[in-house]
Amino acid sequence: MMSTAQPLSSIRLMMTSDDASSEVPSPPQREESSVVESIGDSESPQSPPESTFTHTLPIHTHVTSSILTKETNEPVSLGGLKNLGMLVLLANNLRLILENHTKYGFLLGNPFATVPIGDVKNTVLVWCLIPLHILFAVTIEKYIAKKAIGTKKKHVDNPTAHFRDHLYCLAHVINAGWLLAYVTYLVYFHIYHPLLGSACEVHALIVSMKLMSYYFTNRDLRKAFVKDDPVPKDYVLQYPQNISVRNIMYFWWAPTLVYQPSYPRSNVPFRKLFFLKRCGEISALFFALWFVSAQYANPILINSLSAMHDLRVSVIVERILKLSTVSIVIWLAAFFCIFQSILNALAEVIGFGDRSFYMDWWNAGSLGTYWRLWNRPVYNYMKRHVYLPLRTRGFSATQASTIVFLISAFLHELLVGIPTHNLSFIAFSGMMFQVPLIMLTAPLEKMRGPGTVIGNCIFWVSFVIVGQPTAVLWYYYRWHAMHGTVGQSH
Amino acid sequence: MMSTAQPLSSIRLMMTSDDASSEVPSPPQREESSVVESIGDSESPQSPPESTFTHTLPIHTHVTSSILTKETNEPVSLGGLKNLGMLVLLANNLRLILENHTKYGFLLGNPFATVPIGDVKNTVLVWCLIPLHILFAVTIEKYIAKKAIGTKKKHVDNPTAHFRDHLYCLAHVINAGWLLAYVTYLVYFHIYHPLLGSACEVHALIVSMKLMSYYFTNRDLRKAFVKDDPVPKDYVLQYPQNISVRNIMYFWWAPTLVYQPSYPRSNVPFRKLFFLKRCGEISALFFALWFVSAQYANPILINSLSAMHDLRVSVIVERILKLSTVSIVIWLAAFFCIFQSILNALAEVIGFGDRSFYMDWWNAGSLGTYWRLWNRPVYNYMKRHVYLPLRTRGFSATQASTIVFLISAFLHELLVGIPTHNLSFIAFSGMMFQVPLIMLTAPLEKMRGPGTVIGNCIFWVSFVIVGQPTAVLWYYYRWHAMHGTVGQSH
Repeated sequence: MMSTAQPLSSIRLMMTSDDASSEVPSPPQREESSVVESIGDSESPQSPPESTFTHTLPIHTHVTSSILTKETNEPVSLGGLKNLGMLVLLANNLRLILENHTKYGFLLGNPFATVPIGDVKNTVLVWCLIPLHILFAVTIEKYIAKKAIGTKKKHVDNPTAHFRDHLYCLAHVINAGWLLAYVTYLVYFHIYHPLLGSACEVHALIVSMKLMSYYFTNRDLRKAFVKDDPVPKDYVLQYPQNISVRNIMYFWWAPTLVYQPSYPRSNVPFRKLFFLKRCGEISALFFALWFVSAQYANPILINSLSAMHDLRVSVIVERILKLSTVSIVIWLAAFFCIFQSILNALAEVIGFGDRSFYMDWWNAGSLGTYWRLWNRPVYNYMKRHVYLPLRTRGFSATQASTIVFLISAFLHELLVGIPTHNLSFIAFSGMMFQVPLIMLTAPLEKMRGPGTVIGNCIFWVSFVIVGQPTAVLWYYYRWHAMHGTVGQSH
Repeated sequence: MMSTAQPLSSIRLMMTSDDASSEVPSPPQREESSVVESIGDSESPQSPPESTFTHTLPIHTHVTSSILTKETNEPVSLGGLKNLGMLVLLANNLRLILENHTKYGFLLGNPFATVPIGDVKNTVLVWCLIPLHILFAVTIEKYIAKKAIGTKKKHVDNPTAHFRDHLYCLAHVINAGWLLAYVTYLVYFHIYHPLLGSACEVHALIVSMKLMSYYFTNRDLRKAFVKDDPVPKDYVLQYPQNISVRNIMYFWWAPTLVYQPSYPRSNVPFRKLFFLKRCGEISALFFALWFVSAQYANPILINSLSAMHDLRVSVIVERILKLSTVSIVIWLAAFFCIFQSILNALAEVIGFGDRSFYMDWWNAGSLGTYWRLWNRPVYNYMKRHVYLPLRTRGFSATQASTIVFLISAFLHELLVGIPTHNLSFIAFSGMMFQVPLIMLTAPLEKMRGPGTVIGNCIFWVSFVIVGQPTAVLWYYYRWHAMHGTVGQSH
């Protein structure tokens, strides 16, 4: 009330930058130096306005519309709300962790307490069997190679040779097939614990696939060798020098399912630090997987049993949604552990150079892209030994792809149904259901480009928000129904 | 097994594009046409490969590192994981909605059931009082203006004139102050319902602030008029023509707290559709606010009472985190409803042109930026009538800003503490706590630029994830402690 009137031009001078610029008729911009910002700024040599102030300063000088009104020309950034979304996600899950701790305390017990001694014996048996089958495969090949060297000199191409080819094939199929069949029998009937069962089944399946790749590749290399056809320059080792125990042992441990006489080798020698880092990751992730499963997944699953038994749909949906977060964490951790940490550690030890075990599947704009990117070893195997051979025999792309998914579905059922002793064909159906989903999302990705948000969201929702937790819930329920523990949880 | 050996050059030809390009030694790129993508693509005239295939195709041809290994040159996009985050956020909250429905069913009752008839009477009384105070203010100004016209002719500047100035000031302060004080008394002692109380208190506070702005502006305009100083060109109406009932009534309804003799008027006439859209938004948002409060916020708050009573910290933290999501939804909806829908609807009716009621505060990189952007009417008021006058009287920027926050804190306590009948100075302290927070985040924003994610996250966490829900929990608890309903909830 002590201020005296001032010429209005002087008022303008003492205003902050944006107010001075408001003489130019433009909509007001964000002020750079003004009331509250200057609080944190008190050290700067900002001189106070020179003259006594009057209260007549024009504030509303232009016609402007609110920035969220559609007529505004410039689009408004909502980036801050994305940050908020991520923070709310964190807060929500921090709350669930707190709630879980209040309800259950720590749930970690001895993970080996539920493993019967018979399981361990059978696991050791399986791991001893595998090298025998590998040695048998190389023995067959050595025999065939010796014959081939003889054939090459004589240029024999008669019915006897064809009959021999079929015999060799049979020997390999029996060798690989018997391994898989016997291990499957052992796991299904004599290994109670699903984790030990999975370890056996996965290893047997990988080796069986490798042995078939070993056979197919050597068969075609041999044919080229006999006819003196050129062979890929990429291979340092040529047939039949590649047929050796050392060579097949390397293939056994190599992080690939596809046999090549030789592979690109690491440019640098064994890096100890790199290897130790990967081992650290593996330990941390194994612990994390165990902790998350026991502390968070298990209570959700136990609390779902009675609802599954009584088919209370809304509770089941609620359980699936609650499980989805935990299931995503487990999925991402397991993916990283296997495809980044384990395979890289393995590759580092044996000097395997090509480490594209996966590509950026998390950005996949369609289900097809996902399946093409996430598991390169299986993708390469299916492409080289199933898809392309089918295509050369006149199958259409759709037919060949469907057959690939049919085989993949069968193998998924084997990997999930056998260790859980539950061949309900849920895993099989889940894989076969990918075919229509791929057909639906492929045009979307083509239309909207590879990084399409909507296609990526369809992938995530169908795959990890609905698909995986639903399957987990089902297998868990069936396991407990089979072992008579559903009634106990009521 | 029927395939015959082929020259390896022909194998290359029938491979898909990326495999053909692999002869050039470059790391493998994402394949464009390959196994699974071709499923959705079966209609396209893709001819099958021409010759029988062999299984010797080189797959591993180059040394490459995994894309998540740090040595990779190109940074990997993790955009897909952001989509996943948002989807998990959705799934988490969908689950909570489902859980809430299973637990409580629909909780919507009659919102007017808890409103005593006395509250309604007092609310009507307040809304009748307000125009009287406005009319009294314009009456004083009319009297002063008449005197000023006389003074201008005589050029009087004596102690009597100064004394008169003080008398005028006193009259205005009593007029505005009595309105605020009387309404505050009514709300605190005689209006039970916090929502009706808030409506009265907010309206009284807004009108009191407007009346003070009216007085200050006219005082300085009058001084300029008496001394023949130039006045802002922005004002179409000049003193004393602006002193009229019509003019002050426009100011009463104008969406601003700052008095100007005239305001920029809308460029276009009243748009019926624009107005109806805003009204639709207001209705929808009022319903949403009511629904979210009754269905989601209320159960969380009820379930927090006993923990608050017994000071069980981990449960209180859990409740705050659960409340934060609901509180954010309410905050964003209420902000949009008031600052976008209501103020724009009002502005459209009275043809008020300057609609920058808010700026993009959600991207704020510091607390200071937030307070400068979110509520432009109050910001402009404080700047014109408090901050700048203080600065011209020699206060430093920090001092002036602190005084602004002190006044703001007092007004916040008034707006929250009076309708909830609980002057515990939590709202006051919350506002004063902004001063150190602003000082801490301002250098961060300066260092990392205006859109800084970390500054934005500090703002969100302190403000809506921790600050607001904590305050809500406290006021709710105090309300029930006061009305003796804490014991009932045990």
